[in-house]
Amino acid sequence: MNGEFVQEAVARPPLVLGVDPRPELHGQNPLEHIRSYTLELLEALGSKICAVKFQAAFFEAIGPQGFALMHELIAGARVLSVPVIVDAKRGDIGSTAEAYARAYLGAYPGSALTVNPYLGEDALEPFFSAANRNGGAVFVVLKTSNPGSGLFQDLPTSSAKLVYQVIAEYLAQQAEKYRVGEWSRIAAVVGATYPQQVHSLRALMPHSLFLLPGLGVQGGEIMLGGGLLNSASRSLYYPGGKPDLDGAIRQAQTYLEALKEKA
Amino acid sequence: MNGEFVQEAVARPPLVLGVDPRPELHGQNPLEHIRSYTLELLEALGSKICAVKFQAAFFEAIGPQGFALMHELIAGARVLSVPVIVDAKRGDIGSTAEAYARAYLGAYPGSALTVNPYLGEDALEPFFSAANRNGGAVFVVLKTSNPGSGLFQDLPTSSAKLVYQVIAEYLAQQAEKYRVGEWSRIAAVVGATYPQQVHSLRALMPHSLFLLPGLGVQGGEIMLGGGLLNSASRSLYYPGGKPDLDGAIRQAQTYLEALKEKA
Repeated sequence: MNGEFVQEAVARPPLVLGVDPRPELHGQNPLEHIRSYTLELLEALGSKICAVKFQAAFFEAIGPQGFALMHELIAGARVLSVPVIVDAKRGDIGSTAEAYARAYLGAYPGSALTVNPYLGEDALEPFFSAANRNGGAVFVVLKTSNPGSGLFQDLPTSSAKLVYQVIAEYLAQQAEKYRVGEWSRIAAVVGATYPQQVHSLRALMPHSLFLLPGLGVQGGEIMLGGGLLNSASRSLYYPGGKPDLDGAIRQAQTYLEALKEKA
Repeated sequence: MNGEFVQEAVARPPLVLGVDPRPELHGQNPLEHIRSYTLELLEALGSKICAVKFQAAFFEAIGPQGFALMHELIAGARVLSVPVIVDAKRGDIGSTAEAYARAYLGAYPGSALTVNPYLGEDALEPFFSAANRNGGAVFVVLKTSNPGSGLFQDLPTSSAKLVYQVIAEYLAQQAEKYRVGEWSRIAAVVGATYPQQVHSLRALMPHSLFLLPGLGVQGGEIMLGGGLLNSASRSLYYPGGKPDLDGAIRQAQTYLEALKEKA
């Protein structure tokens, strides 16, 4: 994809394939099998998904070869014209944030990266600028799908707003500066396990795509709505708990039918 | 280092060498030169520093070869018995946090990792447990050195405490569970550019090591005090703006003399 992430993503079915590879499920040559299985999945599911999301942690846990494999698979997805989200949740200051932005948004024009907002505005800005220069998008971690996400994200501030709501208001302002038509390059990660927060954040951030992880194993349900991108990792990449191409195709179909029923 | 990060670090001079490599400063074979220069620096400075801190962003910006080089240099530092901090500011939920913990704290026993607290308690716990199993430490990003760090970190909460102070209180509780003698495996990143906050956080977190980046180029000054680890990146790795082994040795000496004067 050398196009515009935002325009590509919204023109496709709102389902994201999350790739969280576990080498122990891939036989004797796990890296080779992860490579071939993922590329086969991308070929089979390409028209049924809006993006593929690579979870950097699982590649990094394999070591340098795993990290190189992630880059190979990003390149493979682009050849297959599937928009890419690198789920790396990076965040650092100034020139270090620029380095992270270069590593992903710069290296892969038209792709998206997840980032962490805790370090503040001058830590976010290099990511926003890089997305803008490269036709990309930035998904800022806002309200995460885990049970313990409230500890700091839901802290009430002195204005009675919660921390994640204050961050959302800041992001909504920034989102206006980075519009691509109806939608913005500034997007957010909001757990599908917190559907009420998805709705209330939509009101605060009307022009931001929301990546909704937590579908399936974590208990989140599929949601239909403008800019809502439902992300399924284990339940779609390992249906039945293991690599299974036919099972994944069926699972994607099930998700798409569930979306149709909500329409 | 297969020993205990905490015990090793506090037994040495409280100066951290930050490695933020910029290929454009390293001639025609930049990766090879970054490798040899960094190893020479580690040999020359080994007894003058308490740790080497590798900034993952600059390695990732070089691509998969850069990432592999970071792992080579981590291994090299361990051969030279210099404690390692991987400055990757990782953070994610549940099994994904476990994967990040495996990638660094598990892969390199006796080493430390910087992490981001925004995702909450069940996102931090896998890092704490992995550090505990592997003789490592976790530096949680608390109050960062950048000018914009206050946007979210300094938000006043309804209890009148600031967000980073609430996080500090949580970490102080956790730190008690992970003590290694006087100090804890649960440490924090606090910008040297905010010396007042360093002092007030020390009162809140009496048993945590503090990594203080921001020395030199960012304007932070060296600080003397129990568990305060002064981190210098550009000013020590690139004295005078370029690789310079003799210059780095002189700069380290200058920092150590400044520490002595404060004693």
